[in-house]
Amino acid sequence: MAIAKKIKASMSNSSMIRKMFEEGAVLKKKYGADKVYDFSLGNPNVEPPAVFKKQLIRLAEEQIAMKHGYAPNAGFAETRQAIAAKINITYGLKLTADHIVMSCGAAGALNVIFKSLLDPRDEVIVLKPFFVEYPFYVTNYGGVVKFVKTKDDFSLDIEAIGKAIGRKTKAIMINSPNNPTGRVYSRKNIMELAALLRRKSREYDQTIYLISDEPYNEIVYDNIKVPGVLQAYANSIVAYSYSKTLSLPGERIGYIAVNPKLHEAHELITALILCTRILGFVHAPALMQRIVVKLQNAAVDVKIYKKKRDLLCAGLAREGYQFAKPEGAFYLFVKSPIPDDVAFVKMLLKKNILVVPGSGFGCPGYFRIAYCVDDKTIINAIPGFAEAIRECS
Amino acid sequence: MAIAKKIKASMSNSSMIRKMFEEGAVLKKKYGADKVYDFSLGNPNVEPPAVFKKQLIRLAEEQIAMKHGYAPNAGFAETRQAIAAKINITYGLKLTADHIVMSCGAAGALNVIFKSLLDPRDEVIVLKPFFVEYPFYVTNYGGVVKFVKTKDDFSLDIEAIGKAIGRKTKAIMINSPNNPTGRVYSRKNIMELAALLRRKSREYDQTIYLISDEPYNEIVYDNIKVPGVLQAYANSIVAYSYSKTLSLPGERIGYIAVNPKLHEAHELITALILCTRILGFVHAPALMQRIVVKLQNAAVDVKIYKKKRDLLCAGLAREGYQFAKPEGAFYLFVKSPIPDDVAFVKMLLKKNILVVPGSGFGCPGYFRIAYCVDDKTIINAIPGFAEAIRECS
Repeated sequence: MAIAKKIKASMSNSSMIRKMFEEGAVLKKKYGADKVYDFSLGNPNVEPPAVFKKQLIRLAEEQIAMKHGYAPNAGFAETRQAIAAKINITYGLKLTADHIVMSCGAAGALNVIFKSLLDPRDEVIVLKPFFVEYPFYVTNYGGVVKFVKTKDDFSLDIEAIGKAIGRKTKAIMINSPNNPTGRVYSRKNIMELAALLRRKSREYDQTIYLISDEPYNEIVYDNIKVPGVLQAYANSIVAYSYSKTLSLPGERIGYIAVNPKLHEAHELITALILCTRILGFVHAPALMQRIVVKLQNAAVDVKIYKKKRDLLCAGLAREGYQFAKPEGAFYLFVKSPIPDDVAFVKMLLKKNILVVPGSGFGCPGYFRIAYCVDDKTIINAIPGFAEAIRECS
Repeated sequence: MAIAKKIKASMSNSSMIRKMFEEGAVLKKKYGADKVYDFSLGNPNVEPPAVFKKQLIRLAEEQIAMKHGYAPNAGFAETRQAIAAKINITYGLKLTADHIVMSCGAAGALNVIFKSLLDPRDEVIVLKPFFVEYPFYVTNYGGVVKFVKTKDDFSLDIEAIGKAIGRKTKAIMINSPNNPTGRVYSRKNIMELAALLRRKSREYDQTIYLISDEPYNEIVYDNIKVPGVLQAYANSIVAYSYSKTLSLPGERIGYIAVNPKLHEAHELITALILCTRILGFVHAPALMQRIVVKLQNAAVDVKIYKKKRDLLCAGLAREGYQFAKPEGAFYLFVKSPIPDDVAFVKMLLKKNILVVPGSGFGCPGYFRIAYCVDDKTIINAIPGFAEAIRECS
C-alpha cells in the first residue's frame, strides 16, 4: 500500500460535513445555488468588521522592512502583548506576552497543544457531541480519546466525567460556546468541573489539563457571559481563533494562551513554540499577526447572527421541531423527528436542504444546522423543513 | 512530567540556528545592530517583487463575497490550475489542478507528505548535510531517518544511497538548490538517482518515493538550470514554497505537486488533502492563495543575490577560506579552518559575526553563512573573517 495504514482507514471514514458539502455542490449545479439551502459548513457569510479591511489596506500600502519576512516561532512580541493585555482586562488575570503563542487558527493551536502534551496512550476526554476533528487532533499524537456524553441539555455531566478520569488521563477538552449545540457552559458548571479536576489531579498525583477551544467566545446572545476558564482552573490552556470573531476563517490566525499558574508553565510554553516550528506551521501568518494586534476590540456584529438564530428557531419551533435554543456560536442542534438521523438528513436532502447528521458528532438522533447563511436561505428553507417533519408523522 | 517525553528530549537539543539567532539578539543589544554581522537565518532581506505589493493592495480593496472565508482543504481550484499550468510549461508535463495541494509553505507541505506516507518505523533517507528540520518532519510521524553523506562536492553519492536502501525504505528526500551547500544536483546525478530508485523499487517490490524540497528552485546563478524531478522519476512528489521566490517566508504559502504517473496518485492526493485538514492547517492562507495565482511568473531579482554571493566568495577566498561556490540558494557552506566547527564559530562570534556550525546540519568541520543580508553586512564582516582565520594558523 502506498499511503500510511492509519490514514487509509481515516479516508474511508471521512467527514460527514465534507460529504454534505460535496452533495451540496452537485445539487447546486443541478438546481442553481439559490434553490439549494446549504446549512452544512460553519463558513460565516457575515463580512469582517469594516476596520479589518481598513487595516489590511493600510498594511498592504505601508513600507515596513521585511514586512513579509519570518516572524519568531511564537509570533510577534507586539501581537502577543496586545492579546495578553486584552485577556487580562477581560478576566482580571496577569498574563504576559510570554504566555501567548500565535497559531494557525484554533485547529493549528490544538494540534500544537496535543503534540506538546501527549505521550503515546495518554488519554484525553472529549465530550459528546463533539466537533468532528477533535478525535484526529488527539490520535495524531498517539493519544486515546475517551468519550463522555454531556447531559440532555448539553451541559457538562460532572459525574460522568469523574467516572471517565483515570490514571492515564492527561487532559479534557471543552468547547463553549459549543459546536454543534450552541450551549454555553454556566459559571457553576465550569466551577464544578474545575473542582473535579483538582480533586482527580490530587487523587492520581498528576496534572490533568483543561483545554478550552474558544473560537466562538465572542459569538453569544441575550447578554450571556462566557465564564473564563483561565480564572477557574490553574492548569488550563485556551485555543483561540479569530476565524469567527473577525469572520476570516480562511486566513488561519489564532493563538494559544497558557495559564500563568499552570504547573511548569514555562516548560509547556517552550514545548508549544518548538512544536509550532517542527509541525511545519513555523509561525502564524505574519500579515494577519500584524493586523490582529490592532483589532483586539473589533468583532463582527453579533446582532446579525442573533436575527438568524431567531428566524430559524421560530420557524422550526412552529413546525414542531425540538431543540435547545443556542446561547452562542451559529449552530442549532435539532432532535431528528425519527430515530435514524442519517435517514432524516436524506429526507431533507430531497427538499434541497443540506444539514449534517448528529452521528457525525458522535450523537445520533440529532442533526446540525449551521445558520451562518443568508437570512433568505433560512426563510426559504422553512417550508422544506415543514414538509419533511410532516412526512415523518 | 508535564509535557511529552519526546518533546522534552528535543527541547534540550534545540536548533543551533535559533541558538545563534538568540546570541545575535544579545550582541545587537550590546553593540548596536549595525555592528553585528548576522548570517544565521535564511530570512531574505530582499523585498518581494513590486507586483506582489500591487496585487496585495488590489485584493485588499476588492469586494469579493466571503473573501476571507474557508477555502477547500486542497486550496482554490483556480490557484491549483495556474500552478499546474506553470509546471507543465516549464517541464513539459501533464498535471491538472488535482495534482496540486496548496500548503503552508514547504515546511507544512513536508509534514503533510510524511503524515500521509509513513507507517511507524518506515525509513526515510536524508542526505548530509541536511536542513535542520528534516529529522523532525520524519520522526513526527513515527518514521526513522537514515542519513547518507553526499560526496565531497556535495553531489549525490549514488552508491552510498544504494547501500542505505532496504526493505523498510519508504522515501528519499532531496533539496536542490541545497540548504546549506548551495549545490544544484546535475541532470546526470538526478537521472542516476532515478535509475537507482527504479531498480531498488523492483528489487524490494515496493514503491520508493522521491520527495523533492524545492523552495530555492528559482534562486539559481550563472544560467544553471535545475533539472525537473517530476520529469526524471514517476514516483516523485515536490514540496514548493513561495517564501524565497517571492520573498515572503512570513506568509506561509506553498504547494505539494504530485506526479501524475505516481503509483496510486489519486489515493495519495486524497490522503494529502485529509492530512492538510487533520493536522490543523485546514488549508493554506486564503489571501495568499488569491495572490500567488496572479504571480506565477514573478520572482525576486536573483541578480541581487548573485552580487552578494560574488562579494562574499571573493572576500573569503582572498582570506584563504575553502568552499564550493554556490550554484543556487543563498547559503555558503565553508570549511572550518580548524576541525572543531563549533569552536571556530565561537571565534567568529568574538568578531560579532554570527554563522551556524556545520554540526547543526549533521556535517561537522564546516559552517554555514546565510548571505541573504545587506551588501554592507557582507563587506564589513570580511575583516572579522580575515582575523579569525589568521588566528587559527
